[in-house]
Amino acid sequence: MAKLDDLLEDLVTANRVLASQGIVDSFGHVSIRHPGNPMRYFLSRARAPERVEIGDIMEFTLEGDPVDAKGRRPYLERFIHGAAYEMRPDVMSVIHNHSPGVIPFGITGRTMRPVMHMCATIGHEVPIWDQHTKFGDTNLLVESMAMGRDLAKKLGKGRTALMRGHGAVVVGPDLRATVYTAVYLELNAKLQMQAEAMSKKVKFLTKGETKLVAATTTPANVNRAWENWCRKADRPYKE
Amino acid sequence: MAKLDDLLEDLVTANRVLASQGIVDSFGHVSIRHPGNPMRYFLSRARAPERVEIGDIMEFTLEGDPVDAKGRRPYLERFIHGAAYEMRPDVMSVIHNHSPGVIPFGITGRTMRPVMHMCATIGHEVPIWDQHTKFGDTNLLVESMAMGRDLAKKLGKGRTALMRGHGAVVVGPDLRATVYTAVYLELNAKLQMQAEAMSKKVKFLTKGETKLVAATTTPANVNRAWENWCRKADRPYKE
Amino acid sequence: MAKLDDLLEDLVTANRVLASQGIVDSFGHVSIRHPGNPMRYFLSRARAPERVEIGDIMEFTLEGDPVDAKGRRPYLERFIHGAAYEMRPDVMSVIHNHSPGVIPFGITGRTMRPVMHMCATIGHEVPIWDQHTKFGDTNLLVESMAMGRDLAKKLGKGRTALMRGHGAVVVGPDLRATVYTAVYLELNAKLQMQAEAMSKKVKFLTKGETKLVAATTTPANVNRAWENWCRKADRPYKE
Amino acid sequence: MAKLDDLLEDLVTANRVLASQGIVDSFGHVSIRHPGNPMRYFLSRARAPERVEIGDIMEFTLEGDPVDAKGRRPYLERFIHGAAYEMRPDVMSVIHNHSPGVIPFGITGRTMRPVMHMCATIGHEVPIWDQHTKFGDTNLLVESMAMGRDLAKKLGKGRTALMRGHGAVVVGPDLRATVYTAVYLELNAKLQMQAEAMSKKVKFLTKGETKLVAATTTPANVNRAWENWCRKADRPYKE
Repeated sequence: MAKLDDLLEDLVTANRVLASQGIVDSFGHVSIRHPGNPMRYFLSRARAPERVEIGDIMEFTLEGDPVDAKGRRPYLERFIHGAAYEMRPDVMSVIHNHSPGVIPFGITGRTMRPVMHMCATIGHEVPIWDQHTKFGDTNLLVESMAMGRDLAKKLGKGRTALMRGHGAVVVGPDLRATVYTAVYLELNAKLQMQAEAMSKKVKFLTKGETKLVAATTTPANVNRAWENWCRKADRPYKE
Repeated sequence: MAKLDDLLEDLVTANRVLASQGIVDSFGHVSIRHPGNPMRYFLSRARAPERVEIGDIMEFTLEGDPVDAKGRRPYLERFIHGAAYEMRPDVMSVIHNHSPGVIPFGITGRTMRPVMHMCATIGHEVPIWDQHTKFGDTNLLVESMAMGRDLAKKLGKGRTALMRGHGAVVVGPDLRATVYTAVYLELNAKLQMQAEAMSKKVKFLTKGETKLVAATTTPANVNRAWENWCRKADRPYKE
Repeated sequence: MAKLDDLLEDLVTANRVLASQGIVDSFGHVSIRHPGNPMRYFLSRARAPERVEIGDIMEFTLEGDPVDAKGRRPYLERFIHGAAYEMRPDVMSVIHNHSPGVIPFGITGRTMRPVMHMCATIGHEVPIWDQHTKFGDTNLLVESMAMGRDLAKKLGKGRTALMRGHGAVVVGPDLRATVYTAVYLELNAKLQMQAEAMSKKVKFLTKGETKLVAATTTPANVNRAWENWCRKADRPYKE
Repeated sequence: MAKLDDLLEDLVTANRVLASQGIVDSFGHVSIRHPGNPMRYFLSRARAPERVEIGDIMEFTLEGDPVDAKGRRPYLERFIHGAAYEMRPDVMSVIHNHSPGVIPFGITGRTMRPVMHMCATIGHEVPIWDQHTKFGDTNLLVESMAMGRDLAKKLGKGRTALMRGHGAVVVGPDLRATVYTAVYLELNAKLQMQAEAMSKKVKFLTKGETKLVAATTTPANVNRAWENWCRKADRPYKE
């Protein structure tokens, strides 16, 4: 099980990296699909990402039932993860955060688009999901598979979706690429806001550029950032 | 008196957390009502919150008289606390700060509203108190019970009020929930400013959403942040 | 000479505090008038404020001649200090910085006014000095008493003046009050920029409020911040 | 070869300083031309600047071929450096970064100009290069000498050029002056954005001022910042 142990340590690291990079504050969470069983995923118990340790990692069914809770309380919003894994066989990692930069986009309906090459993996256009549309007044938590599935529908085939008045969900083909996308989603929000304040004519990445850059965003590139983020978060780095 | 000792340590922690989270700078203060005597509250002597230690905590009557000063100088503005406790039997903690994000709202008369779920406990609308209205030109300090009561009237039944050209007052049913509200009031200010710069049409939380989220903001949720903030402020965490 | 030694240590501390508070970067400087001889002032040799040590402090005549250089190179712009001391017998400390927040005000001609009580000591209105007016194209350094005197004239009887495309000069009746004003000048710039972006109608402090707050800004108040800043800059605090 | 060793240590330091100053994140790179052979330059292997160590420094021909790779992978975009050295015999150092502040300028076509004296070395006007103009849809990486030469053409005789949707290139007569320009390019972007939001009439440095300031930006001045940056990046300082 050496490989699974490494993945779970990487998951702990991802929690710390997201916190250290300001992509999550005390809230938000990151999961990985079980590499050997597509019907399971790993996610910490309900704890601030900066505090997550290996003993906090729990295993869940896609429906959100803990496999061996040991008295640990799960995140109320684990259904964001389960529904994404259910709908998207290509997705191996899911992040939910309250990335501050994206909030103004979600609540004004402004579409996020990549402003620079580092941000291409957010996709050509970032959709916005509003829980109120289907569910009316709620406490804005994705507390059920029904809500999770509605969000996953809005995510579609892309890697990011905003959640109005709440935050974002980010998915990817592996953990590190997903963390990378989450970090650059936040930067994109900040820079797009600045550019659109300066001018009505903003050159976003073309569809062609977005595709080509995403294809060039290899594990080697992602690892250059991952190594740096590990050390800043005081976590060991394995290539 | 074990329980009171724990509360007083939590109060020291709250001082450090507010400083570490940037909600107070060298100025600002946080108090708790005496759990055994509603006519008393605890507040540090006049010192930067980041420096407050257990020996700085003083006990006051609601009118602002120290119970056992031991030569320690109190905050000139302790009347903000006393008047809030006097008017609001439900309030068990009060924070006064110069939260930078809220200043532009106070001096432009713009109403703050919750932009995301984390900020719901600020209330559906945040009132603005202007000392000049009743007291004309002053040094802008709430230096008397008369001034404190005028501010508490503006606070009404809510948890937050802005003070024009000065800062904010935040109240709550317990210390940790009040610190939480103060932290997210500052974030809300920043995000609302950004959203309103982007668009005239901003979707704030509906009245229904605000109520439902506030009801879901349980001690367990608040503790997830509290644990994280304690460790960042290098203070011990007790659940 | 114990009292002078303490003042010189406080001057070293002021350098570190200004750096730690982001009011100076690698450039900028702070001086004090000699307590026993109004025709002299103390200023570090040319070094980043964050690096200044007691052995860097040099004594100057108001004209800017070092009293005992010992091979140490002085700041080219020491004339800012000398001219302020020459023109203003009430001034006992001078700061020159490149405070980033004030630059947009200096280059757009927008008048800074106090937005909150902490900022009242900047004065009711902050004048802007443009070196080009009298001296045409220059390298924008105040490299002579002629230039320093022209700037001091613009400063007038106030405590602050902006320098177009350059930064600011801040003066005061003692070192700590001057550092305090410089810190809150920068904050005022940031908040005024935000407020004026939100609305055409901004309530600044009235003339009466500005006066009353400035009168309340006592050494005790300033020391609450000074103690905090000392510890953050890792310097010993003496009341 | 003592002098070359010192230069290579300075190059490692430059990597750390750029990271510590926020001018590069996990991406971006800095090189120096070989002091003894104008047909060679030194550049780290592909690694985050914050992690670069002396053993990472590789030597390249201007065409981008490693002289003694030892299995180390080079930056895909080393052609930015080679082409600048090829076109500009006066250039002894090159930086490529994704400086966030400049991105909005690059994607809105807004011309950067110096707003304050510290920023004069960016030049009177900063040109913008758009890879799409000559090469159509690409992955936005400067992956060939053809692309590098096209960028160097846009750079012309100046020290800075923006790269649309990507970042910037900065060159200079020596390493420290180039790092200095890169740091102040980022600051200039932030302050120009703020000023232009405040007013349509912004006083930039005149052509004459820009020239005079650049002439005054001596190694002594640059070293004041360099000493400070070294210590903040925990690197030894040699004058």
